[in-house]
Amino acid sequence: MPGYEMHKSDYLARLKRIEGQVRGLQRMIDEDSYCIDVLTQVSAATKALQSVAVGLVDEHIRHCVRDAISDDPASTDRMVTEATKAIERLLKS
Amino acid sequence: MPGYEMHKSDYLARLKRIEGQVRGLQRMIDEDSYCIDVLTQVSAATKALQSVAVGLVDEHIRHCVRDAISDDPASTDRMVTEATKAIERLLKS
Amino acid sequence: MPGYEMHKSDYLARLKRIEGQVRGLQRMIDEDSYCIDVLTQVSAATKALQSVAVGLVDEHIRHCVRDAISDDPASTDRMVTEATKAIERLLKS
Amino acid sequence: MPGYEMHKSDYLARLKRIEGQVRGLQRMIDEDSYCIDVLTQVSAATKALQSVAVGLVDEHIRHCVRDAISDDPASTDRMVTEATKAIERLLKS
Repeated sequence: MPGYEMHKSDYLARLKRIEGQVRGLQRMIDEDSYCIDVLTQVSAATKALQSVAVGLVDEHIRHCVRDAISDDPASTDRMVTEATKAIERLLKS
Repeated sequence: MPGYEMHKSDYLARLKRIEGQVRGLQRMIDEDSYCIDVLTQVSAATKALQSVAVGLVDEHIRHCVRDAISDDPASTDRMVTEATKAIERLLKS
Repeated sequence: MPGYEMHKSDYLARLKRIEGQVRGLQRMIDEDSYCIDVLTQVSAATKALQSVAVGLVDEHIRHCVRDAISDDPASTDRMVTEATKAIERLLKS
Repeated sequence: MPGYEMHKSDYLARLKRIEGQVRGLQRMIDEDSYCIDVLTQVSAATKALQSVAVGLVDEHIRHCVRDAISDDPASTDRMVTEATKAIERLLKS
């Protein structure tokens, strides 16, 4: 079970909304919207994606890393490294 | 004409691809993919959106700000402020 | 003259404060401060640095790029590319 | 003991280097360096700070959160929330 299991429908709804934002961006470009207005919408979509990411990191530590510590301590270091690398990729994106 | 006018179809294609990435994220969540794999895809979509943003900022300065400087110098300060605020929003998202 | 010429002492004062924040971080580590408190301070210093960057980008477009457009139009494309690449580096850092 | 205990001298050395980078930035401004060169250095200092942050997050999860899970499970949820909020602040800075 992934860490986000209990909030699956919430994440799906958020990603559905982000998909709508990205489609809205295509409409804006198609209709020659002013660059700055398009940029404002790109920032909003990016912020929404980053917020999904923070939620997934939270659930991953709260559930997956915690379970590993109880059930399979030997795997914990590998899991923390993996989580940290994911956080690092988020910071660079 | 917006600054991105000449590359409209390129931006539309990139946003179409990002829309596909966001739909792929929904599929991953739906299929209980491992948190870290989902996060890797969120980073990829964020990076793609940020890259669209950098392109739009570039075209905005290259065309809109430049035109303002030649045609309506009085509006330049307002336009630069507006562009900087857009860059600031990107940095915070 | 660099674009930030008129606000040199303001930038120097802000960087002096950031230097103080980074020294404060060393004191916190030295005194075994709680990880989360150190991270809060790292975020504050990063935010202050990013804010200096946004200011420099603003002045660069407002003065240097504008001057290039009036005085040496042939150099404008190169200057915009250079500015956009700097913004891209900020977004990835 | 903070999570970074075992690597204290490493973090102190990295922060010392970042302090030097911020002092270097003041020198650059003082000597009227070209805006883009200053921005490149601001990006380098930001990247170095963010890398310190990623290291601290890693050690915090690896040691503090793990110890909480073994020794004081009731505090784990609070600690994960605290860590996630710190990661969120980093992403927004």
